[in-house]
Amino acid sequence: MISEKMYSLGASPSKIRDIFEYGKKKKAELGEENVYDFSIGNPSVSPPDQVMKEIEDLVKNSDTVELFGYTSGPGDMKVREAISDYINRTHGTDLDAGHIYMTCGAAASLTITIKALTPDSEEKNEFITFAPYFPEYKVFVENAGADFITARSDSETFQPDIDDLEKKLTPYTRGIIINSPNNPTGAVITKENIEKLSALLKKKEAEYGHEIYLISDEPYRELVYGDAEVVYPMNCYDDTIVCYSYSKSLSLPGERIGYIAVSNRIAKDNETYLSICGAGRSMGYVCAPSLIQKVIAKCQGLTSDISVYKKNRDILAGALREYGYYVVQPDGAFYLFVRSLESDANAFAEKAKGYNILFVPSDSFGVTGYVRISYCVSQEMIERSLPAFKELAKSYGIG
Amino acid sequence: MISEKMYSLGASPSKIRDIFEYGKKKKAELGEENVYDFSIGNPSVSPPDQVMKEIEDLVKNSDTVELFGYTSGPGDMKVREAISDYINRTHGTDLDAGHIYMTCGAAASLTITIKALTPDSEEKNEFITFAPYFPEYKVFVENAGADFITARSDSETFQPDIDDLEKKLTPYTRGIIINSPNNPTGAVITKENIEKLSALLKKKEAEYGHEIYLISDEPYRELVYGDAEVVYPMNCYDDTIVCYSYSKSLSLPGERIGYIAVSNRIAKDNETYLSICGAGRSMGYVCAPSLIQKVIAKCQGLTSDISVYKKNRDILAGALREYGYYVVQPDGAFYLFVRSLESDANAFAEKAKGYNILFVPSDSFGVTGYVRISYCVSQEMIERSLPAFKELAKSYGIG
Repeated sequence: MISEKMYSLGASPSKIRDIFEYGKKKKAELGEENVYDFSIGNPSVSPPDQVMKEIEDLVKNSDTVELFGYTSGPGDMKVREAISDYINRTHGTDLDAGHIYMTCGAAASLTITIKALTPDSEEKNEFITFAPYFPEYKVFVENAGADFITARSDSETFQPDIDDLEKKLTPYTRGIIINSPNNPTGAVITKENIEKLSALLKKKEAEYGHEIYLISDEPYRELVYGDAEVVYPMNCYDDTIVCYSYSKSLSLPGERIGYIAVSNRIAKDNETYLSICGAGRSMGYVCAPSLIQKVIAKCQGLTSDISVYKKNRDILAGALREYGYYVVQPDGAFYLFVRSLESDANAFAEKAKGYNILFVPSDSFGVTGYVRISYCVSQEMIERSLPAFKELAKSYGIG
Repeated sequence: MISEKMYSLGASPSKIRDIFEYGKKKKAELGEENVYDFSIGNPSVSPPDQVMKEIEDLVKNSDTVELFGYTSGPGDMKVREAISDYINRTHGTDLDAGHIYMTCGAAASLTITIKALTPDSEEKNEFITFAPYFPEYKVFVENAGADFITARSDSETFQPDIDDLEKKLTPYTRGIIINSPNNPTGAVITKENIEKLSALLKKKEAEYGHEIYLISDEPYRELVYGDAEVVYPMNCYDDTIVCYSYSKSLSLPGERIGYIAVSNRIAKDNETYLSICGAGRSMGYVCAPSLIQKVIAKCQGLTSDISVYKKNRDILAGALREYGYYVVQPDGAFYLFVRSLESDANAFAEKAKGYNILFVPSDSFGVTGYVRISYCVSQEMIERSLPAFKELAKSYGIG
């Protein structure tokens, strides 16, 4: 008497985890230095020193009953104020702290938001994202009992294809999930494209007579290189909810800390916010972890040293192109989405294993023909891996 | 387009929170020292020094990329080993670390477990607990789409009434939730009663031909006074899942850290465990917070100074009896469940507010005619409150 669905989610962890676990075994077998593991998006750079300093300071100088005590369900008010102040200062919004809900990271932000935005009626409910997408979106949408729908992205630029989205919109569409910079492609949605998306959604809201929420999943917001602008979507579209996490920007993925920001331009903003509070409550999210809430309040605007990722990107993308791979230059995140050297990306990834190179075939992300290479690794591992990438290309008669 | 159910959960926070918020306002108005707030179960004693020491030590002496990095979904293996070792040493079980799943506290332990144990079929699914019960149980059961059923407890001893449970069991019963020591009564289930429960469930499992899981919610396990024995239910009943939290034992409620332990005597223990992993994944619980996982691994067997709570209990229960209140001596937790001085406990709690005494009427806990008084407060506040309790009794012509 168990849930077969939950069993199957538990028994078949994501492909990403699968390859990561394979890598751990291979490293034990062949030695750490002989396996080139590009499978997982775990930050390879330390948190800013300020994070460690604030932890020590809070633990030493606070009333520990209060420090480790429950915060209110939506989070400590001073923390929420620090965040809304920072967002307003940075993006010119006029959010108030009462529209911030602290969460245990981006995954929690998303499950809570999606559940809150799924009406209880027996009607169909649909959430749409653009492929390629982070695979857990499907799991999170289905957790709310809704249907997971995908629209395509441009196969050259990985920009969301808004014309294709238009074909997928129905009166049952509850929300659109965007992710910029994107996992797995690294693409940053252009301002032009966000505006096109916004115009389409406004038109369709009027046509259907109800909201279509834009859910912006933004764990990579700060990880951009060059002069790419990551538009703050609340400034383009009223019915926007931002799901943020400090996992990547502050290198705190294990600490599970993030937030949901509900635009105050949503017509029924308070109702929307309260439904988020209720969804968090229903799933047992009592409050986001207390100590780390207070730490991130003091680290607004800081990031880990992301220049490391830029350097990694440049070395790896440059070398792969030289060897004959087709690589679109990503503007952000820490992933390269590289065209597979044979039509079946799974076969390509399997072949790469023979060269001790581990990356994730794109089928997991909802498209065929690519592999995701996570470059949040040491520069030294990238350099060590280059001859293997070269050999892999040669084995296909390339380069 | 939001979920009305989630909205209503968000817009009507629990009665406990409600009174707590009222208390905050009253304190601002009348002065902290003139309000006697017994509404909430927030530990009033600091965590053991070891907790702070381990945090500082880990932050100073660890590789911070690893320290703050993702752990595996079920938790860091060394942490899980420390926990299973401790359980085995303390309770004579033979759990292995592979049966421990780290969670963000007891609420997460429960929502995950209940979801995992709710089959996907269109059939009815029922979970039963004993009233009085912690009010969020209802929310958590309904989150899984299952029905929340209650059986009664003895009105003198607050022991679960196993004969009444027998009447409530059906072929749709998936699990029984017990909570010992109990919130709100402080009662510890006797060994005799656990054995009676176990025998009944075994009989019914044979009759129905499927498992009935015993879900033991144990955040108060270590908070016992005198020589009450808190039976480890896995030792009495095979199909047991323990939901544990360090919130109360280590005074870390805000840190959200606990675990689920799946008995290895469950016939399909691995399937059950994997369905728990899947349920956690579906709700966006990526991993329990990383730093605090590593801290609690080094604090197994420690507790905050619970002698403070015992002293509070003795002072308060003694005085209330002297004033004419009817108080059953609780063996554990940090609550007194006191008979209301009028039939409507809500009216009684309202009247108490006139004396600046705040406690929670029992209707929230599924029974009428009592109030819950949380004595996890300062001894000094208890002493200051006594004249008000005396006056309150006098206003009913008692004492």
